[in-house]
Amino acid sequence: MNILVIGGNGFIGSHLVDKLLVKGHTVRVFDIIYEKYRKPLRKVDYRVSSLENKEELAESLLGIELVFHLASSTVPSTSNLDPKSDIRNNLLTTVELLEIISRQKIKRFVYFSSGGAVYGNPIANPINEEHPLNPISSYGIIKAAVEKYIYLFNRTHDFHPLVLRPSNPFGPRQGHFLAQGFISTALRKIKLKESINIYGNGTSTKDYIYIDDLIEATYLLGMSKAVGSYNVGSGTCVSLNDLLEIMSNITGIVPQVNYLRKQDYDVDHFTLDITKATKYIRWEPITSLENGIKKLWDWINKNE
Amino acid sequence: MNILVIGGNGFIGSHLVDKLLVKGHTVRVFDIIYEKYRKPLRKVDYRVSSLENKEELAESLLGIELVFHLASSTVPSTSNLDPKSDIRNNLLTTVELLEIISRQKIKRFVYFSSGGAVYGNPIANPINEEHPLNPISSYGIIKAAVEKYIYLFNRTHDFHPLVLRPSNPFGPRQGHFLAQGFISTALRKIKLKESINIYGNGTSTKDYIYIDDLIEATYLLGMSKAVGSYNVGSGTCVSLNDLLEIMSNITGIVPQVNYLRKQDYDVDHFTLDITKATKYIRWEPITSLENGIKKLWDWINKNE
Repeated sequence: MNILVIGGNGFIGSHLVDKLLVKGHTVRVFDIIYEKYRKPLRKVDYRVSSLENKEELAESLLGIELVFHLASSTVPSTSNLDPKSDIRNNLLTTVELLEIISRQKIKRFVYFSSGGAVYGNPIANPINEEHPLNPISSYGIIKAAVEKYIYLFNRTHDFHPLVLRPSNPFGPRQGHFLAQGFISTALRKIKLKESINIYGNGTSTKDYIYIDDLIEATYLLGMSKAVGSYNVGSGTCVSLNDLLEIMSNITGIVPQVNYLRKQDYDVDHFTLDITKATKYIRWEPITSLENGIKKLWDWINKNE
Repeated sequence: MNILVIGGNGFIGSHLVDKLLVKGHTVRVFDIIYEKYRKPLRKVDYRVSSLENKEELAESLLGIELVFHLASSTVPSTSNLDPKSDIRNNLLTTVELLEIISRQKIKRFVYFSSGGAVYGNPIANPINEEHPLNPISSYGIIKAAVEKYIYLFNRTHDFHPLVLRPSNPFGPRQGHFLAQGFISTALRKIKLKESINIYGNGTSTKDYIYIDDLIEATYLLGMSKAVGSYNVGSGTCVSLNDLLEIMSNITGIVPQVNYLRKQDYDVDHFTLDITKATKYIRWEPITSLENGIKKLWDWINKNE
């Protein structure tokens, strides 16, 4: 298939591109910059531009049968600082993208929403896909609004959208631009012998998924006929303090920790219910937290 | 109190202004145009400008203690035609307004959301305020996103927001700019001896509230310490066909009806659960559908 990956030079995107190439697809990448950790791949058709450049975006969609949209200019921790930019750069551009996709009659569209940000503080755990969307960051508000526009276009146009709601992915090549992900950040701090900041007392628990497991589910769901929203996580949770202990055991280093005031945009506890995805694609995550952290630690030591 | 009513020259806004003046408040109105059905009121300080004009908006907020925000550039039936304009004109401007309000340390903010548009097709009726927000029009998506930004600002700034979710209000002075409201539109068609369009077979049921009852609840809730989202409706529902029969009885005219294809943006059945508001302010709607329609019919015959 001819596939466009918007945000294909980011952390998740670059792993997705690898998977698509292995499976024999023709891959085009639309991203605002090149990959940080690797040279451009020979087999990929790169379009380096901004989503606000409508003409280049429309041109990059020519001949495409499937679009993965992973681009975001913000992360939860930065989005509240300038919500208007978040609206302009992420909501407006994605609605523009949906309009171009429907004009060009592209049928399959996969959007990376966020299992960590769209639900807000959960009413109950684990969270299934019917849980109300009560985001507490601009990042989450925009992801939720984009989802609703996708379903609005689904009712009025002939296309088959898939919305993925991943939990917290971690793995090699994370941390390209901004502070992404506690595990990657903490392992880098351990490597640099710097102290680690924890917002809150470290008892908040979250769902983490190793990048290879996320990519496998993304590929299977993207290639399936699934339409709708799907959680993709480990289906389990772990506290920040327990994560630190696992990292200490693996690295042999006990880091210094600064416990700071809890952040407003941060969800306290969340575990995704992944039953819907596991049933539909007969998939389940196979990388344990310990193995994933070991792989990431090895990668950091080889590459940074 | 010094009160600003944004959208104070519209249907609901003009009635709210009347109420505030009767209660002895000092009223300023920010709106893009003057009232259609009345001359400017002597006691009101009018600021006729667009919300995109930040400087004039900021200036109009000087000295204000309470802001009612009722302005919207779209209605559900038009919003899907150009969702990007909806995002720019309603979401971006309202986030800008929230930023100015928090800079100017204005404590009380009342936003007119929509009980008819934010919930989407209800899981169950009557709909209480905890019902998930599943809007099916751009109008509803934007109203829901604005609500979430309001609560985001509430967590990070010291202000006390109230979100009202009215059902379908009707009454004198409705229909200023666009096709607003089935009852007003149908009564005008009856008066003009034109046929009435119904999208669907007329069995869809909705909650209608007479404007005086909505304004009473708006005033009481706005002046109270209520923070959060409140439904304001009749708590009952009526089908379009039953409405037509009531209108025929009152006007003595049996209109010709064209039954057309149901619209995508239209919710099938909804009744608001108004228990939260009735308990908090000891209010309940007192105008029957028949009495409300009679009053509106009299007004149309006198004024148009």
